[in-house]
Amino acid sequence: MNHFDWDHSFYVDFDLAAGFSEKAEPTRRYLSQMKDMYYDSAAAEKILKTEDPLIYEFYELGFPEREGDLAFGTTILYPGKVGNEYFMTKGHFHTKLATAEVYYTLSGEGCMVMENPEGDTLEMPLVKGQALYVPRRYAHRSVNTGKDPLVMFFTFQADAGHDYGTIETKGYHKMVVEKGGETAVVPNPKW
Amino acid sequence: MNHFDWDHSFYVDFDLAAGFSEKAEPTRRYLSQMKDMYYDSAAAEKILKTEDPLIYEFYELGFPEREGDLAFGTTILYPGKVGNEYFMTKGHFHTKLATAEVYYTLSGEGCMVMENPEGDTLEMPLVKGQALYVPRRYAHRSVNTGKDPLVMFFTFQADAGHDYGTIETKGYHKMVVEKGGETAVVPNPKW
Ligand SMILES: [Mn+2]
Ligand SMILES: [Mn+2]
Repeated sequence: MNHFDWDHSFYVDFDLAAGFSEKAEPTRRYLSQMKDMYYDSAAAEKILKTEDPLIYEFYELGFPEREGDLAFGTTILYPGKVGNEYFMTKGHFHTKLATAEVYYTLSGEGCMVMENPEGDTLEMPLVKGQALYVPRRYAHRSVNTGKDPLVMFFTFQADAGHDYGTIETKGYHKMVVEKGGETAVVPNPKW
Repeated sequence: MNHFDWDHSFYVDFDLAAGFSEKAEPTRRYLSQMKDMYYDSAAAEKILKTEDPLIYEFYELGFPEREGDLAFGTTILYPGKVGNEYFMTKGHFHTKLATAEVYYTLSGEGCMVMENPEGDTLEMPLVKGQALYVPRRYAHRSVNTGKDPLVMFFTFQADAGHDYGTIETKGYHKMVVEKGGETAVVPNPKW
């Protein structure tokens, strides 16, 4: 239950390393909710036979989708793989396509995978102590390529909206995988 | 010289405690540039006879003032007083009045002083590990009430615009001062 006063200011704690809040309630995404997003569906099914791992959690604070407001919070993306593909967030376009997002990495390491409707792709590192700019018109998904949780503080326009459907059909053009002990960005064979 | 690619993503370092960037250039505000904003002008003049202290510095990255973009960076506000009034930022309304701002305090302690055009005032604590929401329509000024630099990571709509003039004429309705060894929020006698 997130009740914050967006009209008269409020503050909310986010641990500067682990990202967790004592005051706010997180939303959690488990493998079962996004198994079809991983390329190796057999590997996903095999994991789900014995457990349903938490892939990531984030705070969205119940922000009002109003012009001029900002949504913010942290995302905690856990380390792990499905087959050789690293744990990742669902990712989305903004419904108001030409709206940006800022990510400030508090701990861990990973990669932001982006693409616009024309199919131009961008991959940028997520590094502790670096802020990353997701430009307008780019769908964005974060990927944890490390051994520890990847923790990011994010901000976006509260009226941006989230479009998960477009990118769910075939997935992103690029995948981030472990290949011979190294992290590699490879084309998604579904495209 | 800040050259970042707002159309194709970029990343920039901000130290998670001290706030400084190696990649970006800060803007600096010295006492001489804002001496008339402090109530005790005699105290300001006295300091300026021997030195011109750096009050705060911030990174603005040369963001484009376009719809859908976000401006972000850190502010480093130094500890100190002019008379009994704590070091503070100039503060401003946004030209697009109904646009919010998010501050995430990385270190130090202080206070955000806010007021809307109707004269309603708000004061909220700035605490390490807490994110503060500055609501739409509120002018905002941060004040360092501690002994160490107050460091904040901020984000706002890139097309919000800055209106310093309105609040410069008479200042804010409230002042943050040291009074008998304690921090106190008191009415500004100029109002
Ligand atoms: Mn987004
Ligand atoms: Mn502002």
